[in-house]
Amino acid sequence: MNIFILGPAGSGKSLLARNFSSYLASEGYRVRLVNLDPGVLDPGYRPDFDIRSNFTVESIMREENLGPNGAILEAMDRLAKTAIPRFEDSDYVIFDTPGQLEPFLFRETGRRIVGRFPDRCCLFIGDLPALRGNLLGFYLYALTAYLTLETETIAVLNKADLLSPEEIGEIEESLNDPVKILARKPLNLREEMNMELLKALRVFFPPKRVPLISAKTGFGFDELLTMLYEIKCACGDLT
Amino acid sequence: MNIFILGPAGSGKSLLARNFSSYLASEGYRVRLVNLDPGVLDPGYRPDFDIRSNFTVESIMREENLGPNGAILEAMDRLAKTAIPRFEDSDYVIFDTPGQLEPFLFRETGRRIVGRFPDRCCLFIGDLPALRGNLLGFYLYALTAYLTLETETIAVLNKADLLSPEEIGEIEESLNDPVKILARKPLNLREEMNMELLKALRVFFPPKRVPLISAKTGFGFDELLTMLYEIKCACGDLT
Repeated sequence: MNIFILGPAGSGKSLLARNFSSYLASEGYRVRLVNLDPGVLDPGYRPDFDIRSNFTVESIMREENLGPNGAILEAMDRLAKTAIPRFEDSDYVIFDTPGQLEPFLFRETGRRIVGRFPDRCCLFIGDLPALRGNLLGFYLYALTAYLTLETETIAVLNKADLLSPEEIGEIEESLNDPVKILARKPLNLREEMNMELLKALRVFFPPKRVPLISAKTGFGFDELLTMLYEIKCACGDLT
Repeated sequence: MNIFILGPAGSGKSLLARNFSSYLASEGYRVRLVNLDPGVLDPGYRPDFDIRSNFTVESIMREENLGPNGAILEAMDRLAKTAIPRFEDSDYVIFDTPGQLEPFLFRETGRRIVGRFPDRCCLFIGDLPALRGNLLGFYLYALTAYLTLETETIAVLNKADLLSPEEIGEIEESLNDPVKILARKPLNLREEMNMELLKALRVFFPPKRVPLISAKTGFGFDELLTMLYEIKCACGDLT
């Protein structure tokens, strides 16, 4: 199974790639790790394939005399054209994706690369402490990724280790009660519309299907693996 | 009125900032231009305030010994703490925002900065040729921005000059007929859910309210200005 770890910059993709692959290996699986982020200085692990052997954002900045914005776009175009090994001898291949999800998603790069792998799934990571007030934004961005990449996606809330048990309780309550997700929004946002939207979102990401994890401590990895089994067995039916 | 130009990297934000502000000036308005993108090498205009006078992504990479990913995040944190002038003597202040929208949106930076300006509106720009197959992704990302920044947002499709009249006709048809937006999605995506979602999206962004423009040629600027008038008059009620 090919697992793509997606999420905004700073959500903890590389740490999850490293520690979840160690966890899978300790459970007895054959695991490979692929780094698709040409902008990272040190991912914190030794990948089996590393896009930085071909190019980095910094090398493109120097060679093409581009700023970081232009170099990131050029890197995405090059990434789309790169042959990425399949590692068919493995049980799980974990793909760490570019630091910024946006150019991966809104150019053809993401769809082209992810689409090459038949047996696949995405983990969409959110940074819990940063998102506390904006769970709706997290759901929407996860849904954008799901529909753009046309791949079963598990929305995962990371960095649970940074919250107190009370705060985790509150988040879990919000996930289960959509009205709470909207609670901090001002009244001038049309409520009826928001409720319609939430109803739609909850079908894509049922509350029980949004695990709280910690990429750092390994909290929630068992639950994540169970969800991956279910995706594999049900051929993509997460309901 | 404070107008924030948002959108994914490469959607044409800086060109729109430049040409739309020239257009407004030629219509007799007092206009100011603010560059909030610390990663751009040359925005193509001379801003009245430029965040690059304080720092750039490249200077942060050098000084802090960070890669582009880390430097972009650090730049967003610094941006959030920067005092940005108000230019209350102007009719319109146009804000060109960071190249990558994502770190602006998913950290507190965007909400903090935009929230400081009371009389405001966002233009969310999409790159039409790049998006042709993914209008749904565009809507969802625009909605994420709208709900995160809590600001009236006009979704704008840019680069109309790169499409043929037939292609523009097709896009307009898609905008008006939600089933067409879904046409390219595979059948295994649950159709009923998608329709629910689209119903919700269409309330946020009514099809008649998604102008096709060209930042390059000025096509559609009149229509855009009319929409801005209406937002100003209706105090944020776009329906």
